[in-house]
Amino acid sequence: MAYVAGGSARKRAVVIGGGFAGIHAVLGLGKLPLDVTLVDRRNYHLFQPLLYQVALAVLSPAEIAQPIRSIVRDYPNIEVLMDEAVGFDLEEQRVQVKSGAVLEYDYLVVATGATHSYFGKDEWAKLAPGLKTVEDATEIRRRVLLAFELAERQMLETGRHPALNFVIIGGGPTGVELAGAISDIAKLYMAKDFRHIDPAEAQVMILEGSPNILGMYPEDLQQMAMKQLEALGVKMRTGAHVTDVQPGYVMVGDERIDAVVTLWAAGVQASPLGKLMGLETDRRGCVLVDEHLNPKGHKEIFICGDLAHFEQDGKQVPGVAQPAMQMGDYVARRIGRLTAASLGSDGTGVEEGFRYFDKGDMATIGRKAAVAKIVWPFKAHWSGFPAWMTWLVVHIFFLIGFRSRLAVFLKWAWTYLTFTDGARLITGSLELPGWEAQEGVGEAVDVPPVDIASLKGN
Amino acid sequence: MAYVAGGSARKRAVVIGGGFAGIHAVLGLGKLPLDVTLVDRRNYHLFQPLLYQVALAVLSPAEIAQPIRSIVRDYPNIEVLMDEAVGFDLEEQRVQVKSGAVLEYDYLVVATGATHSYFGKDEWAKLAPGLKTVEDATEIRRRVLLAFELAERQMLETGRHPALNFVIIGGGPTGVELAGAISDIAKLYMAKDFRHIDPAEAQVMILEGSPNILGMYPEDLQQMAMKQLEALGVKMRTGAHVTDVQPGYVMVGDERIDAVVTLWAAGVQASPLGKLMGLETDRRGCVLVDEHLNPKGHKEIFICGDLAHFEQDGKQVPGVAQPAMQMGDYVARRIGRLTAASLGSDGTGVEEGFRYFDKGDMATIGRKAAVAKIVWPFKAHWSGFPAWMTWLVVHIFFLIGFRSRLAVFLKWAWTYLTFTDGARLITGSLELPGWEAQEGVGEAVDVPPVDIASLKGN
Repeated sequence: MAYVAGGSARKRAVVIGGGFAGIHAVLGLGKLPLDVTLVDRRNYHLFQPLLYQVALAVLSPAEIAQPIRSIVRDYPNIEVLMDEAVGFDLEEQRVQVKSGAVLEYDYLVVATGATHSYFGKDEWAKLAPGLKTVEDATEIRRRVLLAFELAERQMLETGRHPALNFVIIGGGPTGVELAGAISDIAKLYMAKDFRHIDPAEAQVMILEGSPNILGMYPEDLQQMAMKQLEALGVKMRTGAHVTDVQPGYVMVGDERIDAVVTLWAAGVQASPLGKLMGLETDRRGCVLVDEHLNPKGHKEIFICGDLAHFEQDGKQVPGVAQPAMQMGDYVARRIGRLTAASLGSDGTGVEEGFRYFDKGDMATIGRKAAVAKIVWPFKAHWSGFPAWMTWLVVHIFFLIGFRSRLAVFLKWAWTYLTFTDGARLITGSLELPGWEAQEGVGEAVDVPPVDIASLKGN
Repeated sequence: MAYVAGGSARKRAVVIGGGFAGIHAVLGLGKLPLDVTLVDRRNYHLFQPLLYQVALAVLSPAEIAQPIRSIVRDYPNIEVLMDEAVGFDLEEQRVQVKSGAVLEYDYLVVATGATHSYFGKDEWAKLAPGLKTVEDATEIRRRVLLAFELAERQMLETGRHPALNFVIIGGGPTGVELAGAISDIAKLYMAKDFRHIDPAEAQVMILEGSPNILGMYPEDLQQMAMKQLEALGVKMRTGAHVTDVQPGYVMVGDERIDAVVTLWAAGVQASPLGKLMGLETDRRGCVLVDEHLNPKGHKEIFICGDLAHFEQDGKQVPGVAQPAMQMGDYVARRIGRLTAASLGSDGTGVEEGFRYFDKGDMATIGRKAAVAKIVWPFKAHWSGFPAWMTWLVVHIFFLIGFRSRLAVFLKWAWTYLTFTDGARLITGSLELPGWEAQEGVGEAVDVPPVDIASLKGN
């Protein structure tokens, strides 16, 4: 085991996690007279708000991900380590990574985010994938597309097929986005592609445990979202507590709900690093931080993004992209001030605390609708097409923060606006878990010969 | 088991395989008064000549693949079945697919192509992936990118790293394309991305068993290709018979050649369907066909593409894209003639046999060079940049045969010409087979503290 960092004349910051918070922190720190080490398990930064579009075969993974090394290429004082933090010595100020190296730090930024929580039912994970990583997204894409293919095949073999029920557990923004997109794809996009089944018969259902869809939005926007989802044919059940997830169906109390594909958009939990560091966390594993985003007793450690439990005006700041970016920016400024102080310049170490500047929130509902709670530059509640256009502009704007503007705009606008082709590839396994458990699968019926040209989709 | 096809007033053609031959056959058959069923294991057609660009992280899979259903969407008489042929009854003229359905046919087109051959050493497959499928390509991409990341990590931990040797077994077009592309990527593209290692030190080696690289090309082009590869720093060993492939190295006789990544571009073998049908095959499993692409004794069966062993002027037509497309086109025309005859119109069933019209052949060597044997519209042997430009134009032209011209042209030209970003994502497993077997891996050396900004890449 070797000590590779620290000891040079310059102070060193170690940043763990290359999500929104970590990348913003690093890009700020790169401008300071510091050595910076960014550690991430993955070699790319992911633009997570568009991940559901990969899941629904509109965009390719590479269109919403950018290699971390190319993001920081122009900062000679930043090094990138594709690795994982596995141990901390907060007294000696060092981090151990999985491959064995030990990184010493003067400042430590931890921004490893959150992942799904299956509320202790980890066996549900394989049956109902969530949407946090590129692998998650391609797995959801695989399952959704495969369900239609298997139904067509089944029709050919037996003359009937199971109902194409897509069940989404969780009615937050991710659940609503997935529901709207699946519904749109089935109705608009696959309609002419199949001869034996009618993809438009696909039924999307959201099961939400709380009394409301999009619980964190104002009530009027919840209502508008529900109307827009209904217009797309999405069924919603609120107050529906899922008690079991099985291959081919889910249970809500005693009721069995068949599902050719079940998706998980319900709970999240923080990365385990907060606990690993021995810091005080809330019940989700988020680290309690003060106004400087420091955990108790460690002015040299900063927790950002979804891993941080930061309260402002008595409310916890939500775990979404905007506060994560702002926290990352703040931490870089804060470390800049502390560094200046330690270097004996005018910095005093006294600086105002972090404040989340909320510009608003948006969730898309299919291809042409959305709800937007706008807080800045003016206050408004929008829904429908105006909200969707706002969403589009904001996301293109943020996406191209890290990429070539023209290329991404063309690529993405083309694919998204025309809704043709996209990335409808089924890769990996050709089995769908739970398919055999569907009613009617494999039961042969005598099928009369068919004239293909007279079938559906023609 | 149900009989789903056949019996209607119209004749039915079953086409197995959605590669170049199968798609061309189907698009021709779609214009005839026939019912057509296309069977493929995958839901997309792959533009295989650009697959190595996915492997080298320049293009995304979706950019060179198109869903089969969208290709045939406008032909109401074509149905698509995502399935696999597993049994044939040539007397009763029917095919069984894996899911259980049985397809009756009046005409059968089999175009299931070829796959890698490890010459009976199937255990090499995991150690030295070949390049036939999207999964192969993303696996190669994963290994190549991961090797650089692991070396950087290793440097940080122990101050040394194994030599970045990439060994490519096989010096045909695929081997040459992979070698040129890896070399380019290491030298041009990754140069500024790493602080501790120098990616330009990567060494690419081609091991070719026969006496020549690009054996099927004329000698002058072989020489030019070797010069261009040398200019890129690629080492070539001809007459080098690989006797063993192990994690971290390959053996050529008694000589051990270290390899952080080993790739397979050596042998191909035909799909097993020829043998499954009980037809006469050559030693590679290709079905011997007559001038109408019929196997012996079956005027209603056509074998196309890489699966066909077709001789013209005493030489076997090669297993590449052009003859496959032409065979597919021919079969559709031939079936059109036979159908017309059976319908009592002027068709007589007598028609000239298939002739392969060879326009030439091309292989790229890195980013700005290629060799081209041009046969039509004029005869020439080109190399270097003119050959590369020809390659670019021809491939864009063919690629967009199936896709929206503008979108693909913009997407692809942008990514390829700028060589920035591309699709450099490491997805899936984060382990590299054989890494631990490399010299120096895991041996800790005392590493002095480093000033990151003074390191390589800055």
